[in-house]
Amino acid sequence: MIATAELQLIPLGEGVSVREKIGRVVDLLSDHDLIIETHAMGTNIEGKMIDILAAIGEIHAVLHSEGSTRLISYIKLETRTDKVPSLEAKRL
Amino acid sequence: MIATAELQLIPLGEGVSVREKIGRVVDLLSDHDLIIETHAMGTNIEGKMIDILAAIGEIHAVLHSEGSTRLISYIKLETRTDKVPSLEAKRL
Amino acid sequence: MIATAELQLIPLGEGVSVREKIGRVVDLLSDHDLIIETHAMGTNIEGKMIDILAAIGEIHAVLHSEGSTRLISYIKLETRTDKVPSLEAKRL
Amino acid sequence: MIATAELQLIPLGEGVSVREKIGRVVDLLSDHDLIIETHAMGTNIEGKMIDILAAIGEIHAVLHSEGSTRLISYIKLETRTDKVPSLEAKRL
Repeated sequence: MIATAELQLIPLGEGVSVREKIGRVVDLLSDHDLIIETHAMGTNIEGKMIDILAAIGEIHAVLHSEGSTRLISYIKLETRTDKVPSLEAKRL
Repeated sequence: MIATAELQLIPLGEGVSVREKIGRVVDLLSDHDLIIETHAMGTNIEGKMIDILAAIGEIHAVLHSEGSTRLISYIKLETRTDKVPSLEAKRL
Repeated sequence: MIATAELQLIPLGEGVSVREKIGRVVDLLSDHDLIIETHAMGTNIEGKMIDILAAIGEIHAVLHSEGSTRLISYIKLETRTDKVPSLEAKRL
Repeated sequence: MIATAELQLIPLGEGVSVREKIGRVVDLLSDHDLIIETHAMGTNIEGKMIDILAAIGEIHAVLHSEGSTRLISYIKLETRTDKVPSLEAKRL
């Protein structure tokens, strides 16, 4: 099942600027078979729902292994059966 | 105080497609002195925090007056004092 | 890795009241080895991160198989390495 | 117009534990004519929509004046016209 999603991951305890860590999140997402679109408030994602969920879990594991102590992901996950969803079709 | 924000408004009870209502939200935001950037999972906003909050309240009131029965807004609201925030600076 | 999370699932196109569907979400979560706590704006969850992510994917699949056309999940997912997180410890 | 809402405020750059700051948020909310219910993943709020929005803006201003550098609020805001919403009625 194809899903569209948004991910904003916030590392706590790594200072005020989290830009470097967000770049790492995008890098890790790019290793998966997913369409990703970054924007000012998060990263939009299109792909198989199970791949999106697996990628998010992997990102938490990898960032912790790289030294992050506390991570919060804010996720929107959308699925629909009346048509194949896509980020492109969802733009106004 | 300048804030950056994201708004995704979901109308309930108006069918599966909510595209028309989202267009109305963007129209209403455009009437305010705010920078807005639409994307597939919401609308990013930059402007005075009080203007953003007022605009969101107004949008709920207007959409209800236009017939919407139930509305849920998902909002991210960011402020910082170490620099003037902007959507442009937050892009990777 | 143990995570704490919040899930609010919104079905679109099923009318203004979504209480029955939310009850189904809680039922499906209850089938997993997870601690769940419902509240007015969502359901808090504690358990293995991979189990939480798998449960959310399963819920989308089951609700679609039961007739839902469009589903949006709003998820907060927290992990930390400095202690074992729990919903109980996170209460004020 | 009465609204129900959820607020989770995250301070960045204040270390891994943000419990003290969350307590301050609840204190500030308590100064308003709002019903509040804390839970493990945020604080649920019931009251006039304009009071809720004003309280959130005030909290950002006060926390910055008390030394916070960067704040992100995650807000769910619900309104409906078919009945007067309440946190109590929204519990399962």
